[in-house]
Amino acid sequence: MKNAHDLINANFKNAKLLIVEDNNDQWLIIQQAMRQCMSELTAERVSTLEQAMTLLNDWRYQEWEIPKLILLDLYLPTNADGWWLLKQIRAMSSSIGKLPIVMLTSSVDPIDIKDAYRLGVSAYVVKPIEFADWLTCFRELRTYWLETVTLPSIQYEF
Amino acid sequence: MKNAHDLINANFKNAKLLIVEDNNDQWLIIQQAMRQCMSELTAERVSTLEQAMTLLNDWRYQEWEIPKLILLDLYLPTNADGWWLLKQIRAMSSSIGKLPIVMLTSSVDPIDIKDAYRLGVSAYVVKPIEFADWLTCFRELRTYWLETVTLPSIQYEF
Repeated sequence: MKNAHDLINANFKNAKLLIVEDNNDQWLIIQQAMRQCMSELTAERVSTLEQAMTLLNDWRYQEWEIPKLILLDLYLPTNADGWWLLKQIRAMSSSIGKLPIVMLTSSVDPIDIKDAYRLGVSAYVVKPIEFADWLTCFRELRTYWLETVTLPSIQYEF
Repeated sequence: MKNAHDLINANFKNAKLLIVEDNNDQWLIIQQAMRQCMSELTAERVSTLEQAMTLLNDWRYQEWEIPKLILLDLYLPTNADGWWLLKQIRAMSSSIGKLPIVMLTSSVDPIDIKDAYRLGVSAYVVKPIEFADWLTCFRELRTYWLETVTLPSIQYEF
């Protein structure tokens, strides 16, 4: 029988994050932070809604490629884009629809925060400004999602 | 204008957790862990579905009483009880329906894990066995939910 420890170890197996981020500078920062705090994980980045939908649709038939967690920027470049993508993901009937989604955005607008939770994000994280705070943030995302939480298991559909 | 730091500080203002736990021994452990790792937070515990629904309905008219986070046991005493309560909370139109819910359960059944994410938990955490691991878990819940994440704002309805 599996125990909690096995489940945590399983979190790291072929672990990948999907990062939806349209800004190249922010993507450079995220890569740096991941290299320092999540070196076992790979990152797959998309920068447009079209790229995101292509990848998500491919994964329906390649479930071993599905990431552990999605980091979703909101303003892509407008928040209507981010909401559209969040709704598309949450409406997917495959394992992808149930993945944890952390909204990672510069917006501190209370309406954005409220709408994010209403539309089903797992958490809303405001992007840090200082690089030291990015490291703290990514270290924390790692500890929480990969060492504390039990993630949804991926189920093959075919 | 609010910045990320103000938002984090706001997380601690009158911070309370709702704990839905039917087992008294587990509740004693949770209280101990909270005392050591979340001393600024108060805990409100309910042990039956009826108590939970009464409290949640009261909070619709006392939104200043709404907690920051719900820790929800699943087997209350059967998982049908936990699923029923999770669905009730997620169907609430008030701010309560959007609160982060961490399922905190002893179950490592993959079907429970899958169903929890499908029904809208923010995360699924397997209850530790050793007390030292409970402390690590609660320290981590605190760092993540109160120091990293921006929580949904409570909106007064009346």
